[in-house]
Amino acid sequence: MIESQPISNNTSFLSTIGEGGLLQLLKPFCSDRIGDDGAVMGTMPSGYEMVVTTDILIDGVHFSPQTTKPQDAGWRAAAANLSDLAAMGATPWGVTLALGLPPETEIDWILGVYQGFTDCLKAYGTELVGGDTVRSPVKTLAVTAFGRVKSAQIIYRHTAQVGDLIVITGNHGLSKAGLEILLNPNLAKNLSIEAIAKLHNAHQRPKPRLDLMPLEYSRVSGMDSSDGLADAIAQICDASNVSAKLDYEKIVIADEIKLVANEMERKAIDWVMYGGEDFELVMCLAPEDAQSLIKRFSESVIIGEIIPKDLNSQELTQNLNISKSFQHFSL
Amino acid sequence: MIESQPISNNTSFLSTIGEGGLLQLLKPFCSDRIGDDGAVMGTMPSGYEMVVTTDILIDGVHFSPQTTKPQDAGWRAAAANLSDLAAMGATPWGVTLALGLPPETEIDWILGVYQGFTDCLKAYGTELVGGDTVRSPVKTLAVTAFGRVKSAQIIYRHTAQVGDLIVITGNHGLSKAGLEILLNPNLAKNLSIEAIAKLHNAHQRPKPRLDLMPLEYSRVSGMDSSDGLADAIAQICDASNVSAKLDYEKIVIADEIKLVANEMERKAIDWVMYGGEDFELVMCLAPEDAQSLIKRFSESVIIGEIIPKDLNSQELTQNLNISKSFQHFSL
Repeated sequence: MIESQPISNNTSFLSTIGEGGLLQLLKPFCSDRIGDDGAVMGTMPSGYEMVVTTDILIDGVHFSPQTTKPQDAGWRAAAANLSDLAAMGATPWGVTLALGLPPETEIDWILGVYQGFTDCLKAYGTELVGGDTVRSPVKTLAVTAFGRVKSAQIIYRHTAQVGDLIVITGNHGLSKAGLEILLNPNLAKNLSIEAIAKLHNAHQRPKPRLDLMPLEYSRVSGMDSSDGLADAIAQICDASNVSAKLDYEKIVIADEIKLVANEMERKAIDWVMYGGEDFELVMCLAPEDAQSLIKRFSESVIIGEIIPKDLNSQELTQNLNISKSFQHFSL
Repeated sequence: MIESQPISNNTSFLSTIGEGGLLQLLKPFCSDRIGDDGAVMGTMPSGYEMVVTTDILIDGVHFSPQTTKPQDAGWRAAAANLSDLAAMGATPWGVTLALGLPPETEIDWILGVYQGFTDCLKAYGTELVGGDTVRSPVKTLAVTAFGRVKSAQIIYRHTAQVGDLIVITGNHGLSKAGLEILLNPNLAKNLSIEAIAKLHNAHQRPKPRLDLMPLEYSRVSGMDSSDGLADAIAQICDASNVSAKLDYEKIVIADEIKLVANEMERKAIDWVMYGGEDFELVMCLAPEDAQSLIKRFSESVIIGEIIPKDLNSQELTQNLNISKSFQHFSL
């Protein structure tokens, strides 16, 4: 039932230290709550509800040595899940990380992943409370995050209303442009060092928008833009049975993105709309609340409004071209 | 960054229905709480604490087509995590399942896993509240379960006390014997149909001991025996800084196990002590509580007692031979 694996005598590989050695190495990264069959998280303050989200990341599919150092793979895995909590209006309460690892995995890779992962958790005030490490033919990270949110402040996708304004919390397309210059550094030949760092950072160290929480408005509908800005708008409209009218002039296309897209003869706006992994929030709010939000957070922009579905659904589909959105199983 | 995959035109494979088609297929298995970036779990009754546990299971390492139908792989993945909740004294509140799948995965395999997984959840009064499906070169199941337990009833490993009696909640070794006859059906030639079914069932459909919860004793120390009975005793002793004296005559070796072990010229007691995956609970209780527990649950047996560490630590290590316990990364 268990396949044979190449044997290594180098102590810098997982196979030589075994599970016991690995657990010793990882202990400093974990909460004191680890050590039993489950971690005890404590009680929840009254009036709060728990929110849970889970993700699985695969070497060669979601990260690769070419574009993602182990520290960055760990950071991104944590950030993606914290972003899902932010997308629900929640603040984090704890995170678990389960790893599947080939026996020939370098110990430094594992330590790097845990370092980046826990750096991100620490930056957002939470910690690693559970885990599992098993053998797998492919490096695999499985993350589950849970947070808490006051019932009245939960952000759902299905509650957008006609007349709401659509707010995005920052620029889009930077992560995609960052990925392209990591895959082909030559594309960055017209960029300043600062611009290159900005794009690398957008791809490798995305920031979950937990800095906005809690959002104390009467009603917020929304989600994060991890699968692309166009996808997020389409998902909210679909769940809320409404349509959206976008003001494309309000959607900022950063100069750095244009420079990289030009090199590849691609349209920068496509990367902004469909690139994905920017981990901003896309929210629909009553007009006065939208105005209040963009005053509080200077990076936020109103990019359109929610309109009735029957008036304009054809236009939305054409505009957004949602078939371009990321399809996990396309060949 | 994304490897090429064999292309299939058969509609019974994942690659032909894509992520959208897959999510439609899986919807009936999921709680209504799914559909946003995270699932909202509701509030927790006061006086309860949350417990969380996570596991990752890999095709060819933790299950294989030879011994595990997809329904059974799903059931076992759920049961292992619910067992971890039981091992903490908790009752389940919700479970997430993240899957990594090759594009050539048969749709029937995926549906089978979800069927077995949710059958197990339903049998224990809980549901699937979150998930993720991504492409991976190897079938991967990542499960996170959370439960709730009254603070006074949490079962930790580190609280066993000298004089406590050690209780196990049922037979051990059945899962290992079941695995052996699944790998080599010829070993079952002296077994009745009922005995074969019993062993198959022990391996393929393990039962988390949630039926014991809540345990209302003044203090319970313990864990589950998923990594073997010997391992559980050694872990509890290590965490509690005590030792254990076992009465081997009290440790039942089922006749079915002896028959299979004899065929392989193995010692049945080794499978009982080190076989693993029986998912019983191993608990240390004050003598009067231990007596009360075995009266309430007829399958429970007192198999020994907790003794001071310095008196007998050498004997424990020899008796248990913990180095035989499962090592996830040994080659």
